[in-house]
Amino acid sequence: MTATSSSGAELRGAKIAIVGVGKIARDQHIPAIAGLEAFDLAATASRAGSVDGVASYTDIVDLLAAHPEIPAISLCIPPVPRYDIAVKSLMAGKHTMLEKPPGATVSEVLKLEKLARAKGVTLFATWHSRYADGVAAARAWLSDRKITSVQIDWKEDVRRWHPGQEWIWQPGGLGVFDPGINALSIMTEILPNPVHLTAADLLFPENRSTPIAADLTFTGPAGMIVKADFDWRQTGPQSWNITVETTEGLLQLTDGGAKLAVNGVDQPLPDLGEYPGLYHRFAELIETGKSDVDVSPMLHVADAFMLGNRKTVAPFFD
Amino acid sequence: MTATSSSGAELRGAKIAIVGVGKIARDQHIPAIAGLEAFDLAATASRAGSVDGVASYTDIVDLLAAHPEIPAISLCIPPVPRYDIAVKSLMAGKHTMLEKPPGATVSEVLKLEKLARAKGVTLFATWHSRYADGVAAARAWLSDRKITSVQIDWKEDVRRWHPGQEWIWQPGGLGVFDPGINALSIMTEILPNPVHLTAADLLFPENRSTPIAADLTFTGPAGMIVKADFDWRQTGPQSWNITVETTEGLLQLTDGGAKLAVNGVDQPLPDLGEYPGLYHRFAELIETGKSDVDVSPMLHVADAFMLGNRKTVAPFFD
Repeated sequence: MTATSSSGAELRGAKIAIVGVGKIARDQHIPAIAGLEAFDLAATASRAGSVDGVASYTDIVDLLAAHPEIPAISLCIPPVPRYDIAVKSLMAGKHTMLEKPPGATVSEVLKLEKLARAKGVTLFATWHSRYADGVAAARAWLSDRKITSVQIDWKEDVRRWHPGQEWIWQPGGLGVFDPGINALSIMTEILPNPVHLTAADLLFPENRSTPIAADLTFTGPAGMIVKADFDWRQTGPQSWNITVETTEGLLQLTDGGAKLAVNGVDQPLPDLGEYPGLYHRFAELIETGKSDVDVSPMLHVADAFMLGNRKTVAPFFD
Repeated sequence: MTATSSSGAELRGAKIAIVGVGKIARDQHIPAIAGLEAFDLAATASRAGSVDGVASYTDIVDLLAAHPEIPAISLCIPPVPRYDIAVKSLMAGKHTMLEKPPGATVSEVLKLEKLARAKGVTLFATWHSRYADGVAAARAWLSDRKITSVQIDWKEDVRRWHPGQEWIWQPGGLGVFDPGINALSIMTEILPNPVHLTAADLLFPENRSTPIAADLTFTGPAGMIVKADFDWRQTGPQSWNITVETTEGLLQLTDGGAKLAVNGVDQPLPDLGEYPGLYHRFAELIETGKSDVDVSPMLHVADAFMLGNRKTVAPFFD
C-alpha cells in the first residue's frame, strides 16, 4: 500500500458529514476539511458536539434520513461503538472513512471491508501517521536498502494527550497501543518486508484494563530485529521516533514522522500535514472507486495481546 | 472454505516426514498416516521422540539434508517454535502442514502463506475439528437457513487432556483457547455468514499467564448472537457441543463435532475421523497445487485477547 500518490485529487466541494464531534474531530478533522477544496462539511451527528453553521444531529440515523445527498461520512468516534455506526453508513451507500484503529476487533474490520465491496462504496481505514510529512520519503529511501535493525521509541505523557478519556483504559481501548499503533502504522508502511512479533511485555497498571507501556520485539528477514518501546509515563520531552539502521547508513524519522534525516542530514519534505493528507487520499479513493483497508498495524497489536507477557505495575490515576 | 471435498485424493505412497514426535503425533498423526494410502512416513525430526523403523533426526536441518526426496512435511510441534521450522521447510521447497493453531501470531502465518506462494508449494494450516464427521453435514444444513442463536460449550478437564504440558500456560500457549480454537474453527466453518467478537471475559489463574476459562459473545447478521463458554475446569462429563437455533429448528453438533442431530434426530454420517480427513485434504491440496490457510479462528482468539476483560481466579496447580 502506498500512502500518498503523485496524482492530485480532482474532487471539488463534495459534501461530507462527521460522526462524533469530540477532541480529534475539533483538533484535526474539521480544520483539515476546511483547508481542502475536495470536501465541504455539510452535517454532523454527535451526542454532545456540533459545529457552528453546520446542520447537526444527535444520531447517524437522523442524519442519514435528512441528508440523502451527502455521499461521504467520516467516523471520528472511539473504536468500540464504531462498527454499528459504520454498518449504518455503508448500508446507506455512503463512502466511509474510519479513524484509527478501524475497530475494536480485526474481524469486524474485515466484515466492514466485505460490506463496502458488496455496496460498491469506498471504505478507508485511515492511519493518520502514514501521512506525516516524512513517511513517504522514508519509504522510498528504504525500498531498495538492506535494513540491519530498527528502534521505535514512542513515549508520551498520557495525562497531556488523553486527559480524562476513560475509554482508552477500558477493554478495547488499547491503552498505550492507541498511540503505539501509530508507530506500527508507519513501521508497516516504510519497511520493504513484513515483520512479525516474537516477544512482548505488556505493563498493566494494577487498577486499569489496558497497558500503560509495552516492549515489543519483531523479527524480519534474515533475523533483522525491530525493537519498539511504547510508554505513556513520559513526562518532559516527548518521543515519537523511528531509527532504521541500514548497510548504507542511518535513517531517522522524528516528531511522529514529520521530520526525516538520512545519515544526519535533514531531508527536504512536503508540508501537507497528516489529516489533510488523509482527506486528500479519501477523495482519491472515492474518485477511483477503491477502498483502502490495511489491518496489519492492528494485527500486530492483537498479536501482542495474544502472545504478550503481562506484568502488573503501579496504579495509574488521572 | 470447504473442509471436505467429494473428489477422492489420488496421491499414493508419497513420502512424508513428521517434525515433533510428541503426544499429538503419536495419538493422531502417525496412526492417520499409517491408515491412508496417500502418504508413507519416511522420516522424523524430534528432540526426543522417534518412530520404530523410520529414519530419525533431532533437527529438521539434518532431515532436509538427508532426504531431498521427501516432498511433504507435517509440523506437530507447539505454536511458538513453529514459525522458524516452517520457514526452513518451505524454503526447502516442501509442501508443509501445520498443526493448529498455525502459529504464535496471526502476522507470522500470513508471512508463511506469502512464502509458500513464492516457493510454489502447498501450505496447509490445519483445523482438525473441521474434519470431525458431523461438520460437513452441519455446514450443508445451515447453508440456506436463518440462524437465530448459537451456543457453544467447550468444557474439559485440563489435567486429563494436557497433563504436564507447560507450554499451554506460557505466553503464546493460548490456555483454554487451545481447545477453544477448535470450537471456533467449527463455528467459522458452519456459519454461512461471518461473526465478530463483541464482548469477552478471560479468566486467568493468578499463577498463570494464559486463561483457564473464557466467556465470549459474537454478533452476526441482524443481531444474531453466538455465546461461547470455554472452561478447562470441567471434571466429570466433558462437553464439546455446538447448538444452533434456526427458524426451521435445532441443530446439535456434539462430541466435538463427531455427532449431529437435527431437531432431535441423529443424522447418518461418514466415519473417516479428523486426522485421516486432514491428511486426505493435504493430499488433495498437493495434487491440485493449492494452499489452505484460513486464519479466521485465530483472529477471533487474538480479538478476544485484545478486547477481552481480564479477571483473576484461583491459582491452578497441575
